[in-house]
Amino acid sequence: MPHYRADGPVRAGVPEHGRVPRYYAVKTELLWLIEALGEGTALPSERDLAERFSVSRVTLRQAVGELVMEGKLQRRQGSGTYVAPPKLVQPLSLVSYTEGMRRQGVTPARGVITVEHLPADDVLARDLRVPRGDAVIHLERVLLADDERVGLESTYLSAARFPTLLDVFDPTTSLYACLRDRLGVEFTEAEERVETVLATPREALLIGTNPALPMLLLHRVSYDRDGAPVERGRSLYRGDRFSFMARLRSE
Amino acid sequence: MPHYRADGPVRAGVPEHGRVPRYYAVKTELLWLIEALGEGTALPSERDLAERFSVSRVTLRQAVGELVMEGKLQRRQGSGTYVAPPKLVQPLSLVSYTEGMRRQGVTPARGVITVEHLPADDVLARDLRVPRGDAVIHLERVLLADDERVGLESTYLSAARFPTLLDVFDPTTSLYACLRDRLGVEFTEAEERVETVLATPREALLIGTNPALPMLLLHRVSYDRDGAPVERGRSLYRGDRFSFMARLRSE
Repeated sequence: MPHYRADGPVRAGVPEHGRVPRYYAVKTELLWLIEALGEGTALPSERDLAERFSVSRVTLRQAVGELVMEGKLQRRQGSGTYVAPPKLVQPLSLVSYTEGMRRQGVTPARGVITVEHLPADDVLARDLRVPRGDAVIHLERVLLADDERVGLESTYLSAARFPTLLDVFDPTTSLYACLRDRLGVEFTEAEERVETVLATPREALLIGTNPALPMLLLHRVSYDRDGAPVERGRSLYRGDRFSFMARLRSE
Repeated sequence: MPHYRADGPVRAGVPEHGRVPRYYAVKTELLWLIEALGEGTALPSERDLAERFSVSRVTLRQAVGELVMEGKLQRRQGSGTYVAPPKLVQPLSLVSYTEGMRRQGVTPARGVITVEHLPADDVLARDLRVPRGDAVIHLERVLLADDERVGLESTYLSAARFPTLLDVFDPTTSLYACLRDRLGVEFTEAEERVETVLATPREALLIGTNPALPMLLLHRVSYDRDGAPVERGRSLYRGDRFSFMARLRSE
C-alpha cells in the first residue's frame, strides 16, 4: 500500500507526475521547518534559508510570502518572521464574536471607528424591514483578539426599533450581550453567508494588514423570536488568522 | 443626513480622509461599468480603458486583476475579459454539493481524479475512528457546475465499514445519494470548518485556475444517527465563484 500523502505538500506540488515548481519545493521544506520550530520561534534569516535550499532570494520570498498569506508565518515589524499560532475558530452560530473568542481563551475587544445614523438604502430597507430612507444605526468597530487587530465589523439596526440603544450601549463591548440583557432581545435565528474577498485600502489600513491579503467576509441577518430582523452585520476577518466552524444537524 | 455609502467603493478606498489610491479609483469606475454592462458582456479593451481613465496600463491591470480575483470579472482564454455571473451559494448543511447546485438551477457533475485505498494516518484514524494504518477509501473528484470546473473534493471513508462501496458507487455521481439510497446511511450531523487558502500548483492545475487565487476550503466530518463518523471531506472551492450559506437556529 502506498504511503498516505494525498494531501501532503510534496505530492500536492506535482501537477501531473511532472516537475515540482522550485518555490513550492522550498515551501514544503519550510512547512517541515515550521513544524519543527514551533509557534513563536523566529525563522532563520532570508540569506541563510536561501543558501540552505540553494535557491535565489526571489524564490525564497515567494515561498515565505505564501506562508505569510496563509497564516503559517507572521511578519513582525522590524524584527523578522516568526512561526504563527494556529488560526482562531469563530463558531457560525448565534454566539457573538465576544463569546466565540472567550471559548478559545482569547480576550476579545473592540475599537470604535464609527457610530452614526444613516438613511436605509435598498439593501438595509429589505433586510431590516424598514422604509427606504428610515434612520439606521451604524456601528463600525475593529475586532481585536488579545490586542491584535483581526477584523472589522459593521452592524446596522433600525433606529425606530432601538431608540434607546445608543444611550445604554457601550460600543467597546458586546452588542449581543447588550441587546439580550438590556433590551430583552431573544436571538433565535440567523442567516450567514461567507465568502473570500480582498480588503479595500481603507479596510486594510483599519485592520493593519495589506490590501492583497485574502479576507473572510461574513454577511449576517439575525432574527428574534417573532421572526423580526434584529441586525444586519458585515464582518471582515483576516483570512490568515481565522476560520469558521459550523455544527449542522438534520431537521 | 449624509448619503449612505458606508460600504461603498469610493469611501472604502479613502484611508483617512486621505488620497484614494489611483488603482482603487479605477476599480470603482470599473465596478460601475460592470453594473451597467451586465453579466456576460465583454469589457472594452485594456488600451481603451486605460485611455478613458487616463491611467497607465499597469494601473489598469491592477484594478482588473483584483476584480478577476474577486469574481466580478472573468478572463476567457484568447477572447478577453467579461462581466462574471454572481457567485454560486453552497449551503452549509447536510445537503450534498449535487443538491446544493440543483437548487440554484445549476447542473452539477464530477470528474474522477483518484479512487484508491490508503492506510489511515493519524488524522483519518481519529476522525473516522479506525485503527491507524487501516484501509481508507479515498475519492478525489473535480467538481463541475454547468461544465465549468469550480472545485476539487477529497472524501475519505472506512473501507471496513463500507466494503461494497466501490462495487455499487459510480464516482461520477453523488456519494451522499449512494450512501443514503444504496447503503442505508442516515446523515444526522456534520461538523464543518471553512477557511481561505491558496491552491497548491497541483490543485490549481486540476481546477484550471491560477495558484495565487484565494480558495474556500471546507473541512467536514459527517455522522450517522448512531453518532458514528461516515466520511471525512476536504472540499476546495474557487473563491471567485463560491460563497457558503448557513441558516442557524438557537437550541
